[in-house]
Amino acid sequence: MLYLIGLGLSDETDITVKGLEIARTASRVYLEAYTSILLVDTAILEKYYGREVIVADREMVESASDEILRDAQTVDVAFLVVGDPFGATTHTDLVLRARSLQIPISTIPNASIMSAIGSTGLQLYNFGQTVSMVFFTETWKPASFHDRVRENRDIGLHTLILLDIKVKEQSLENMARGRRIYEPPRYMTVGQCASQMLEVEEIKKEEGEGKHGVYGEESLAIGAARVGGKTEKFVSGTLRQLCSADEELGGPLHSLVLLGKRTHELEHDYVREFAVDKEVWDRIWKRDYEGQQ
Amino acid sequence: MLYLIGLGLSDETDITVKGLEIARTASRVYLEAYTSILLVDTAILEKYYGREVIVADREMVESASDEILRDAQTVDVAFLVVGDPFGATTHTDLVLRARSLQIPISTIPNASIMSAIGSTGLQLYNFGQTVSMVFFTETWKPASFHDRVRENRDIGLHTLILLDIKVKEQSLENMARGRRIYEPPRYMTVGQCASQMLEVEEIKKEEGEGKHGVYGEESLAIGAARVGGKTEKFVSGTLRQLCSADEELGGPLHSLVLLGKRTHELEHDYVREFAVDKEVWDRIWKRDYEGQQ
Repeated sequence: MLYLIGLGLSDETDITVKGLEIARTASRVYLEAYTSILLVDTAILEKYYGREVIVADREMVESASDEILRDAQTVDVAFLVVGDPFGATTHTDLVLRARSLQIPISTIPNASIMSAIGSTGLQLYNFGQTVSMVFFTETWKPASFHDRVRENRDIGLHTLILLDIKVKEQSLENMARGRRIYEPPRYMTVGQCASQMLEVEEIKKEEGEGKHGVYGEESLAIGAARVGGKTEKFVSGTLRQLCSADEELGGPLHSLVLLGKRTHELEHDYVREFAVDKEVWDRIWKRDYEGQQ
Repeated sequence: MLYLIGLGLSDETDITVKGLEIARTASRVYLEAYTSILLVDTAILEKYYGREVIVADREMVESASDEILRDAQTVDVAFLVVGDPFGATTHTDLVLRARSLQIPISTIPNASIMSAIGSTGLQLYNFGQTVSMVFFTETWKPASFHDRVRENRDIGLHTLILLDIKVKEQSLENMARGRRIYEPPRYMTVGQCASQMLEVEEIKKEEGEGKHGVYGEESLAIGAARVGGKTEKFVSGTLRQLCSADEELGGPLHSLVLLGKRTHELEHDYVREFAVDKEVWDRIWKRDYEGQQ
């Protein structure tokens, strides 16, 4: 059996009892470690499960999946995924490969950022499609997220923005010399995301895309840090304010929610509590959001 | 401390290790039991936690929340919620009340149907807003979901439809006589939902809402049963076919996903596997979905 086991969002005790039992007894245990991270080291997981955990990087999952699936027709193989196995990253390719090899599959779900973001107090019913934000470079500023945000905004919905992480990056020099030396991991912050969003909106304006932008410096949003963890933290404010909220939010992982106009009073009361500046928040809320949809 | 603890979707072992520890040691443990159900009895939970579990019905949570929160400034109170505490049903009102009483709050997230539905193989990124379907009566057929489905469809997104459950219903006679006798719980099936959807589309047509409906008998959809449980089951087909798929799907809880046109080839391969009739599925997929967005 191939078990796809969600680890939840924070530490080693966020696995379900069912998942833990399998992680402890399976023949081999892999940890998918390239699309998200747990806030604890693999060594802590190994100690907690009392066994070896094989870290599966992108290359392994994509090109050595048959090694992961070896003998899974008869023995149990556990594939651990941070969050939910079918959350932000799906592993349909691995499952399709397992199916073709007649390997039975079982999924142990867990919290995903895509549902846990409900702890902002915003109803999940009022979220539109989720988008991702990647680290911009001088020459590469992909703006496809902007269209998705617009689609959500047009029908009054909130947008959850998942922020890029970079693990196992090589410097150009190390790559050229074939040295397997990796840069320290990088996690996008709410501040970086908000600032990139404003940059894209500026570019879109210069390109002449309509008089009214999709969002702006005074759009209301919520920065979220370490959702589901003991040090979970939310900060709400305008995008401009969130550009400098990283210190208050603290360490990774961060996510951002852009507020939609279909917001109930109760949701508003809840989110207002996290405001950087309640007066600014109330003024913009009344002017641009309240009763708009 | 008030702990809001997600129980996950299926049985007593779907709680996280962190959540279990709190459920075993808190001063009082409540189980929210009116918006969703676990597939096991409360007695099984009590045995598993080794303690009493107080079932909190809607009336208790809404009008006796101060009893739930009693002394939570100094002792630990656990409030257990099926799925995730901020998933399909949010408990913002309870949390707002706790905040006003200076009670510290901690959330232990878990799988919610709103993310676990990713196990259909459809990417969560391609889902729009989630909607609910209630049991229709002769005189009450609320169709607000229809507008939401249209909004999602117009931008090519899938729609997750959560299906009604009725617990602690009284017959009119028992209610009139003040007898606290409750009808057996009712769980809406995929077949009932698909059939109600076609009914609403028919009504909308008669009311002259445009020539083209939002969906129809040949719209592709996926019925899901007991997501995240050992007997999880998916059946895909047209809405007409799903009207009679209940036997194949088996017992509660059911959900339904209406397929959007922004569907990747890999998602399609995955979902096709569950088709009632692969030939019908392929024909409609090629005609109405493939390459449409």
